[in-house]
This record gives sequence, C-alpha cells and structure tokens, in this order.
Amino acid sequence: MRPSGRKLDQLRAVSIETNVSLHAEGSCLIRMGNTHVICTATIEDKTPPFLKNTGLGWVTAEYGMLPRATTSRTRREAAAGKQGGRTQEIQRLIGRSLRAGIDRSALGERQIVVDCDVIQADGGTRCASITGGWVALRLAVNKLLKAGLLTSDPIMDNVAAVSCGIYAGQPVLDLDYPEDSAAGTDGNFVLTGSQRLIEVQMSAEGATFSREQMAQLLDLAERGIADLVAIQNSAIA
Amino acid sequence: MRPSGRKLDQLRAVSIETNVSLHAEGSCLIRMGNTHVICTATIEDKTPPFLKNTGLGWVTAEYGMLPRATTSRTRREAAAGKQGGRTQEIQRLIGRSLRAGIDRSALGERQIVVDCDVIQADGGTRCASITGGWVALRLAVNKLLKAGLLTSDPIMDNVAAVSCGIYAGQPVLDLDYPEDSAAGTDGNFVLTGSQRLIEVQMSAEGATFSREQMAQLLDLAERGIADLVAIQNSAIA
Amino acid sequence: MRPSGRKLDQLRAVSIETNVSLHAEGSCLIRMGNTHVICTATIEDKTPPFLKNTGLGWVTAEYGMLPRATTSRTRREAAAGKQGGRTQEIQRLIGRSLRAGIDRSALGERQIVVDCDVIQADGGTRCASITGGWVALRLAVNKLLKAGLLTSDPIMDNVAAVSCGIYAGQPVLDLDYPEDSAAGTDGNFVLTGSQRLIEVQMSAEGATFSREQMAQLLDLAERGIADLVAIQNSAIA
Amino acid sequence: MRPSGRKLDQLRAVSIETNVSLHAEGSCLIRMGNTHVICTATIEDKTPPFLKNTGLGWVTAEYGMLPRATTSRTRREAAAGKQGGRTQEIQRLIGRSLRAGIDRSALGERQIVVDCDVIQADGGTRCASITGGWVALRLAVNKLLKAGLLTSDPIMDNVAAVSCGIYAGQPVLDLDYPEDSAAGTDGNFVLTGSQRLIEVQMSAEGATFSREQMAQLLDLAERGIADLVAIQNSAIA
Amino acid sequence: MRPSGRKLDQLRAVSIETNVSLHAEGSCLIRMGNTHVICTATIEDKTPPFLKNTGLGWVTAEYGMLPRATTSRTRREAAAGKQGGRTQEIQRLIGRSLRAGIDRSALGERQIVVDCDVIQADGGTRCASITGGWVALRLAVNKLLKAGLLTSDPIMDNVAAVSCGIYAGQPVLDLDYPEDSAAGTDGNFVLTGSQRLIEVQMSAEGATFSREQMAQLLDLAERGIADLVAIQNSAIA
Amino acid sequence: MRPSGRKLDQLRAVSIETNVSLHAEGSCLIRMGNTHVICTATIEDKTPPFLKNTGLGWVTAEYGMLPRATTSRTRREAAAGKQGGRTQEIQRLIGRSLRAGIDRSALGERQIVVDCDVIQADGGTRCASITGGWVALRLAVNKLLKAGLLTSDPIMDNVAAVSCGIYAGQPVLDLDYPEDSAAGTDGNFVLTGSQRLIEVQMSAEGATFSREQMAQLLDLAERGIADLVAIQNSAIA
Repeated sequence: MRPSGRKLDQLRAVSIETNVSLHAEGSCLIRMGNTHVICTATIEDKTPPFLKNTGLGWVTAEYGMLPRATTSRTRREAAAGKQGGRTQEIQRLIGRSLRAGIDRSALGERQIVVDCDVIQADGGTRCASITGGWVALRLAVNKLLKAGLLTSDPIMDNVAAVSCGIYAGQPVLDLDYPEDSAAGTDGNFVLTGSQRLIEVQMSAEGATFSREQMAQLLDLAERGIADLVAIQNSAIA
Repeated sequence: MRPSGRKLDQLRAVSIETNVSLHAEGSCLIRMGNTHVICTATIEDKTPPFLKNTGLGWVTAEYGMLPRATTSRTRREAAAGKQGGRTQEIQRLIGRSLRAGIDRSALGERQIVVDCDVIQADGGTRCASITGGWVALRLAVNKLLKAGLLTSDPIMDNVAAVSCGIYAGQPVLDLDYPEDSAAGTDGNFVLTGSQRLIEVQMSAEGATFSREQMAQLLDLAERGIADLVAIQNSAIA
Repeated sequence: MRPSGRKLDQLRAVSIETNVSLHAEGSCLIRMGNTHVICTATIEDKTPPFLKNTGLGWVTAEYGMLPRATTSRTRREAAAGKQGGRTQEIQRLIGRSLRAGIDRSALGERQIVVDCDVIQADGGTRCASITGGWVALRLAVNKLLKAGLLTSDPIMDNVAAVSCGIYAGQPVLDLDYPEDSAAGTDGNFVLTGSQRLIEVQMSAEGATFSREQMAQLLDLAERGIADLVAIQNSAIA
Repeated sequence: MRPSGRKLDQLRAVSIETNVSLHAEGSCLIRMGNTHVICTATIEDKTPPFLKNTGLGWVTAEYGMLPRATTSRTRREAAAGKQGGRTQEIQRLIGRSLRAGIDRSALGERQIVVDCDVIQADGGTRCASITGGWVALRLAVNKLLKAGLLTSDPIMDNVAAVSCGIYAGQPVLDLDYPEDSAAGTDGNFVLTGSQRLIEVQMSAEGATFSREQMAQLLDLAERGIADLVAIQNSAIA
Repeated sequence: MRPSGRKLDQLRAVSIETNVSLHAEGSCLIRMGNTHVICTATIEDKTPPFLKNTGLGWVTAEYGMLPRATTSRTRREAAAGKQGGRTQEIQRLIGRSLRAGIDRSALGERQIVVDCDVIQADGGTRCASITGGWVALRLAVNKLLKAGLLTSDPIMDNVAAVSCGIYAGQPVLDLDYPEDSAAGTDGNFVLTGSQRLIEVQMSAEGATFSREQMAQLLDLAERGIADLVAIQNSAIA
Repeated sequence: MRPSGRKLDQLRAVSIETNVSLHAEGSCLIRMGNTHVICTATIEDKTPPFLKNTGLGWVTAEYGMLPRATTSRTRREAAAGKQGGRTQEIQRLIGRSLRAGIDRSALGERQIVVDCDVIQADGGTRCASITGGWVALRLAVNKLLKAGLLTSDPIMDNVAAVSCGIYAGQPVLDLDYPEDSAAGTDGNFVLTGSQRLIEVQMSAEGATFSREQMAQLLDLAERGIADLVAIQNSAIA
C-alpha cells in the first residue's frame, strides 16, 4: 500500500550516531530512512537580553538544508540573503519543542543553541531535527553536569517528534517524501518521553479532516514516539 | 475567574463591518474585543508561475501590524528590512486556511491576495485575520460572480478560526492578551462552516498537555466557530 | 470644474477622531475626504544617541501605507525588504515639520515617535499625516503635562499641512488623487497656527511655473491651513 | 559677515570641466568652491517598463558620495547595504529636475542615466549635481544629435540649481557647509535658463520663516541661476 | 616539530567517499584529516544569461560551512542575511579552478553547480572543496556521458588543490588549523593532474617572504597534488 | 605587439598627485594610464573590537567604482544593496597588503581606513589602489608623527602592486583593459620597497601556466615595483 512497502504504523529505519562533531559540546547524526540531519548543540555563557538577571536559561534552534539535500537543487538561503518562511517556522518549532522539556531555572543563565542541518531530505526533516536535536542537547547538558557546572539536571524528559498523515485514505506513521507530497492531511506531533503533548500541528493539505481522523493520527504518533524515545535513550547510553 | 469576567466558553464581542475600503474588491474590519483587523481582498489576473497553464487559481495572504497596535511600540518591519518569523508563520497559516475552503479549479487562473493588517492587538490576531479574511475573500468572489467572470462559486464553505487555551488550569475560549501571556497551553483552530478541521495548532507554553485537555479545547473551538460562522454570514447578507 | 465639484479654494470634508488607539499615548484618525490616516504618538524615555546628555528631546516620524490603500495593490514594503524612496522622503518631511513646532529643550531627553499609517489613499497623504500627526503629538504631550513629567509645554504652535497645485490651468486647494495625477505643478505647504512657514515644496510635474503662480498657491495654502488648525483645535478640545 | 568673506549675493568660484570621463557619453566635473561633483550621462537603448511602446524617453539620476568627501568619514552606502533616505531624496530631486527640461517625446524610447558622485563636499552638493548633471546630459544628447539618432533636440532649456538661506539673520546665496549648518532656514531652487521655476524646497531648520523672507531668497536664487546658466553655456561651447 | 607530528611534506590522512547523496548527479565526502566537506554536483539545462546561444557551458560553485563546523560557533550566513567576503572569495576560487579543467565547448549549453559544504573544519577547507568538488563534477559528467548527452568528454584533466605555508620557519605541506593560525606565510595551490598551474595564492600573514621560499612551497605543493590526484582517481575508479 | 604600443616590460604613464582631499588625513589621486583612483586615509581613534586592549592598531580598506568608471555602466553597489564578491575580494586584498607593511604595535590602538574609489577604469584597478593607498596611508601617518601622537614610525617599508600576465603568448607588465580581457594567465603581485613578497595571486584565465612562466611574470613584477616605489617616494617628498 505504502510506496516503501512499510506497514501503516511502521517507522522508517532510524539510527542516531552520537558525537559526530569534533567541536560541538553535543552532536549526533540522525537518520530516519533517507532523511539525514546533523544536530549540534553549542553552549554559550550568555542568554538573550530579555533574560538578563532572571536566573533563567534559554534553548534556541536554527535549521538549514544543504542545497542538494533535495531532489532538485534548492537555492542556498545565504545566497538568497534571507531565511525563508518555511525555515523560520521550522526553527521556531524546534526551539519551542526543546524548551518544553527543560527546566530553564535549573539550566541557569546560559544559552544552548541547537543547529539542525539537513544533509539529505526525504520528508520529515523537522521531526528528525527535534528528535536528533534533543540528543545533541542531552549530550551537551551531560558535559555541563560532568564538569560540575550544573547542580541539578535541567532536562525533565525526552522530547521526540514524528509526522503522521492521511495517505490514500489511510492514517500512516512517519511519512516519507512521496507520501508527504500526496497526503491530504498532514500532522507533526511532538511528545515527551512520558507521552505528554508538546506540539500538535495538523493541516489540511487538500482535504479537511474529522476529529476521528485526528485521534487516529495521534494514536499512531504515540506509538512512533515510544520507539523514538527508546532509540534516543540507547544512543545516549 | 477570567480577567475580562467572561464565561469559560464565551467569545469576546465580535463585529464585522464590510466594505470598509474604497479600492479593494472585498474588505472588512473585524473586531474581536479590542483586536481590530482590516482585511482586504485583491483580485489579480495572473497566478504564481508554478500554476501557469494549470487552470488552477491561488489564494495567498499577507499579514502586518501597525507599530503601535501593541502595548509598547513594535519596530516597523518595513524599517527593519524584513518580515519576522512570526509574521511569516502567520501569513502562511492564513493563506493555507483560506485555500482549504476554495475550489481552485472553479476559481480559474487568477490570484486573490488577502491582506490582514492589525490596527489594534489584544490577542488572537491570527484567528481574527482568518475569520475576517474569509469575509473579504467571499465579497471579492461575489464581485467576480456578479460580473459573470466565474461560472460556478469556487467557495465551498465558510472558514473561521478561534484560539483556546488552558488558563489558570481551565480550558477557555478566545484568549485575550492577558490570558494569552499567562496560558500554559495555547491552541489555534481553523474549521469550516460544517465543522470540518482545517488546521489545529496546539503548543505547550510552559506546561505540556494531555489528550483529554486537547479534546476539551477542541470542544470549545467547535462552539466558538459556530458563532463566528453565523456572524460572518450575517455580515455578508 | 474640479472632478469633485469643489470650489477652487475648498478643502475636502475633514474630520479628526481622537484617541482611536487603546495603547498609544496620543492618537487620531484623520479623514481628508477619502484619504484616511491613523496617527499614533509613542513616548520613549530615551533619545537618539547624538542627543545623549544634551538635555534636548526629539520627535521623529514613520510613514506607511496598507497595501490596498491604493487603487491597485501596492507591494508591502516589509515584504519588499525596504522602505522606498517616496516613503523615506515623506517620513523625513513629517518629522522635520513636527520638530519645527516644538521646543526640544522643554521636551527634555525623551523621544516621541509619530507613526502615520495610511488606511485609504486619495491624494494628499503626507499633508494629512502632518496635520493628524500633530494632533497625536499634542495629545501625548498633554499626557506628560498632566502626569507632571513636564514643567512647561514644549509645543509652541499648531503645525498643519495642505497641498495646492495648478489643475487645468487653475490654482486649486487640497488636491485629491484625480487632480494630483493631472496637475502640472504640485506643492505641499506646512505652516504653523500663526501662519509662519515651515516647509514649502513645489515641483513642476510636466509644466514649469512662475513666481506669480507660486504666490497664488501660497495664498490658497494659508487659507486652507487656517481651517485645518481650527479643526485640530476643536478635535483636541 | 559670511565665514568665507563673500558678499550676500555672491556665488562661490564655479568651474565646469567637461569630458572628464573616457567612457561616458557626456561628463563633467563641476566645482562650486570646495564642493566637487563628477557627473556622467549614460545613454541606454531601453526605457523603464512603464514606458514601453509609449514613444517616450526617460531621464533618471543616481547620487553618491565618496566616504571621505565629508569632514569626518561617512559610512559607504554599498557597505551599509542600502542607500539612505537623504541619498534617495536627492537623486529623486535631480531626476525630476532634469526631466523638467526635456521633451521626452523628442528623446524617443531611450533612457539617459545621470550619475552624480560627490568627490568632495562643502555644502550644496545637490544643487551642484543638478547644474553639472545638466551639462553631462546636454553633452550626451549632443552626441545623439551628431550621430543622427535624434531628429530634433529634446532639450528645451538649461536647468540649474542653487541654495539660499537665512544665515545670521540675513538672506545669503549659495551656502557653504559652515553656513548651511548654522542657517535657520534653507532653500534649494531649481530654475530653467529662462527663469521659470522647476522646484522650490524651503525648510525651517530651527526657525520658521515669512513670505517676505521667501521672496528675498527667491530673488537671490534668480540672480545665482543666471550666472550658473552662463557658466554652463560657456562650458559646453 | 609539527603539532600533529607529521613530516614537513606529509599530507593528512585523505579519503574520498563517493555517491554520498541520494539526489545529486555527482557527490562525495572528502576528508582531509579533520576537515570534512560534502561536495555535490548539480546539472542544470540552462546557462547564465551571458552564455545564451554561445554553445558554451558553465561550471560554478557555492561554498558554505555549518555553524558548528568551527571551534566556536560561527554565525549562520543565512541568518546574517548575506554571504561574507571570505565565503564569496572561496566560492569564486573553486569555480575558477574547476572551469580551468573543463572544455566548456564540449560541455555544451548547460551549467554544473558544485556545492561544497564544510561539515567540520580544521584548516584547508577551500583546498578540500576544490579536490572533492572535482570528484563530484567528474561523476556528474560521467552520468551525462553514460546517458549519451555528451559526445566527447569535456573534462581535460584532474584539478586538485593543497595549502602550504611557512610554519615555525619551515615550509610545510597541508596546514591544519593550528599551523594555519600560526603560519607567517600561507599559500593555496591549484594544479592539474599533469602539474600545470591553475591558481597560486600566496599571502604574507605577518611575515613577508622571498622568491626562494615561494619555490619551496611550490615544490611541496607539486608533491601533495600528485598524491591527491591519485586518491581522486582511485575514488572514481 | 601590445595594443598600446608599449614594450613588454613597460609600465603605463604613472602619476601620483597628493593631498587631493580637503578633509582626509592623507590622500592622493593615482593615475596608471587611464586607470584613475582616488585614495584617502582616515584616522580613527578606535580599533575593531577584537583588538581592544591589545595595544595593536589596524589598517583596513574599502574599494568602490563609480558606475561609469567602466566602458558600459556598472550597477551602483549601494543601489544593488550589497558589495559584490569582486569588490569584497579586492578590498580584503588591499587591507592585507597594507597591513603587511606596518608595525601594528607602533601604530597603537587606532585604525586607519583607506578608501580606494576608482574614478576611471582601464585595467589594474586593484594594483593602483594598493600603490596609491599606501601613499595616502604614509601621508596620514606622517600627520600623526608630526603631531607627536606616535613615538616611532609604524611604517616599515613601501608597499606597491602591479599586474603581469601572458598576453598573446608573451609575458607583459602592467596589463591595461584590452590586454587583461585577452590574457590567458593573469597575476597580481604585491611587494615591499625592498622587493620582499607580500601577495602573489596568479590565475589561469583560459590557459594553465608553467613554473617557468610564473618566474617570468615575477621578474617583470619586480622591475615594475621598483619603478612604482620610486614614484611613490617622489610623490611624498
């Protein structure tokens, strides 16, 4: 049924390779099928101005794609002179999602910047970025803990994300690009390790949807997130 | 309980004044409490390049805020030299939402640009923009129909939007700014007149949420949308 | 003779509605015929760097137009990524004009930003912006006086503006858009309440002009300004 | 009385050296005292899109200053990434002024771009640019006439400009930088060879002004323009 | 002597992994020690406008670095809104170098865009980009040949690059970052497979140099290039 | 043989006119044949942030061209909204070259900005900018020495530059534009007064080159630099 032959509730092959960067405080390469994202976490000793003297830290994210990560070449945003609306929307989502899993008071007045750069794209790059970004963040925080720079762990829970959609009339988990282009309804779900909801973004791309379909997609998402959290944990261990 | 004294499931006072623009093909001023948005629809005889010779039309949206629509003055985006990430995210949402209610084949190869400019902001500007933007769009399409330029009505249903959130532990409808700033969870819901879902965007702003809470917010949204659709229809009539 | 049927020395219907903004320290909506401009004044406790420690204040202005304020849609400057030359020229003119009516030493080291946003355009938007901008400024300064933050009134006189031009060979007052497009010579006149000159900008748009014509336009302007000042004063009272 | 020792109605030493550019179709270096501007005119075989198939030509201008043309170094606009408001205002003025002296129908569908680059500034750069720009334009048009590409001369009259102002309470002609910085009122006057008015721009810089003062400045301007036109003509001869 | 313990004329460990991209017509990941660059080649059926109807093709390059490719995080150029001077200089160099090895007439009217994205940096990124970029280009051209879209091979010879410099008074081959930061003189050498020179860029970074030193660096470069060309050829085979 | 009739090792007529700017601390107009560049040096009392409290000074350069310095008009970079890659490459080269001749510790914590603006171009503008830029720098430093603001002379040696290339199969000195466009190989050489090398930039523009040709070009460059240094010294004397 699915172009890839996967079952409706089956993730693509997922792997997370940690410490892929010589320089970053935390890093990983996440592969969800043919979608590959390098995630790095950088610790900075200062926060954005609006947090000055609040005792609170910040986690933010930036997102990019190599020009030929895509089927046909996409114009380089640095050459275009600005980040497009899609890029900004995605990096805001990654940042919000990761912040939802962190105790900013325990982090103290520092900022962690998570960079998610898509090396190869085949659908689901924002979800892979969140799932991989959390691993990079976890590793960077571990470094702070190990160095005694933090007295308690600011990370409250895992954060992972997966897309689901209505493809050929059926709810399916973890859309790849051919499914994503054809799906009538499309959703991204960000959950914690304990299955609490952080972000739900569902969108009618050609076909409106019902509450019942929404529930079906959420069922799939909960199942996928459980697997992704296990993969995160074994990558870190 | 609510700063405004409203009931949990009570919309703010909503009014839609139509034909507020001398020049636009369709226009209205929507007021949701102290949130006021001017919406205009402009008909253009050409579509974006990717639709050339497809027979399909396009609906797109742009969003802006007057600098002093907000409590303290916001920097003018034209002076800053770019539209911020929030602006781009909102205008992409408005465009997607309005397109979901239109038969692009019946529209033919033309584009309708819906401009939503916030004159005064008190929370919920993106929802007001969608609800008012649909009215402007409806009026512009009526003009095309009246002029005999369309043979069938491309508008399939009303499109309206409302925000809901968990405020002080309670699910509430149509957040104003004081509620929005304090809400732990925040959602925007775009529905059709027949209560089909177009967009669901829920976000944990400080507190993660459960599926049950999600259902409660959606209940509220369905109720609010029904009211908004009635207001749209009486404004147009 | 005139497209609108007005007499040569007749202003359009002018109204100034004050306090149209919930948030701004001073605000009004000025209507000169079909030209409608929202003017807001924002008080800031800091001045531009070049005034630091001089004891002098500053008044500056920004100008914008909603995309569909015009007959056909004008590209949004925020989307274009910059303010055009016309916009910059106009906002510099508004700022200079308003500063000419203020004692910057009595204002003290604060800045007042006057935003003029054209909701609907039918010629004469820069003049309406100056006339309405002064009202917003006056109201904001009143607020400072009332709060005891100023010991003397920094406003020395009213400031108002009107356009005049040679239309169909005749000098006419307060050009609307059809007249403005066809006028051979065009002028903008900014005067004080006591009829002192602040700015005179006359321009040959297709036909050069004589000193005698210049004097005729100035006669008309003085007349129009007297009326506008009376309208300003009654709006504020 | 004047810092330079000049009489109230005395121009600075003016010289116009023609054909200073190896490449441009018309060019000159104009010196008004210590203000030096290189003006070049470039003939292009196409017009701006809005003139396509109208049979009308166009004259436009661009203005720039070398970074160290000024007393202290001014940031290079190319490095800043945009032309400032002052630059745009000036180049729009130059373009409008030169167009007022040309029969665009006789010019035919071509564009002449006049570049005015200030090599050294000591007040009055926009006026020098107009006066010198006209000479470059005249020389370029002569080349078209000589080559038989034009059947009649599109230049209807000389165009020249001069500044006047109220300095130390006195009306003075052709302000240099020390006078310009101190002047209460400042005006730029663009006239034709036959003393018709093209542009009048008067501005209260600290002190409002009367109609009588305005007339005095205009008297001075007429006198100065007569001299400048004679200098233009002898430079071209 | 060298921080890495390498001999003066010893390259870092070099590897070239080909076909690392699912989508690109040619691609490789080149590793020169800790400097890792992804190179992709994209074939486009159109050339830049200046080559229209000349029968000639074009090869161009773009260069970027992931923000955390460097020891401390470098600001993302897409976020900064422009490519820096260093980036532009490097991508112009890559493009010129690759074009020197290609017969643009045999390529025909098509363009090949080579993207070089630095995943991890430890000195010598521009040289690695040229060496790896040539491999990507070679693979893309092979695809054109195989498809019968080219009748003769437009690639005339290998192109490879290496840096050399005077480090601690000694000429050394293939500088890594610690050497590069401390080198008094620094050079980049681009050669063909048959040891013809394409680009020589030598620069005094703190210490001027002699012709004799220049010759010593060139000797080293010729040696390094021979090795790199062998590695290119075995990667492609 | 050469279009200009010059001998293979003959410079164009070179002149350096000093103190051409009323305002700059050092300035000259350098003419190398029809290539004319105005160079000014501006002394600033602050350095770039990365040098704060190091006791070291900085020399930097900016480069520009008047739009009609070239055969056909080049778009003004200020209007285009950015400096092109070529401009940035050239100004980085000028800055590096001039810094190589200065003892930044003797200069102390100040910055000298050298602006090189091409008034007319006929090949070799970057070399003329370096040679003339050094004269402007020398004059500005002389002013500091005379004023007792420096205790020792930070200028260690002259810095001059010249281009050489293979034209019609022959090595030639100081390429003018017709030669530059046709040359197969092109080089820019920056040397000190004592003939030490600062920068060597050789580039195959259509034809690769041999080490022997490289040596021939360097021979020519040494000869040309000796002449340029003599001209610099007599201009300053």
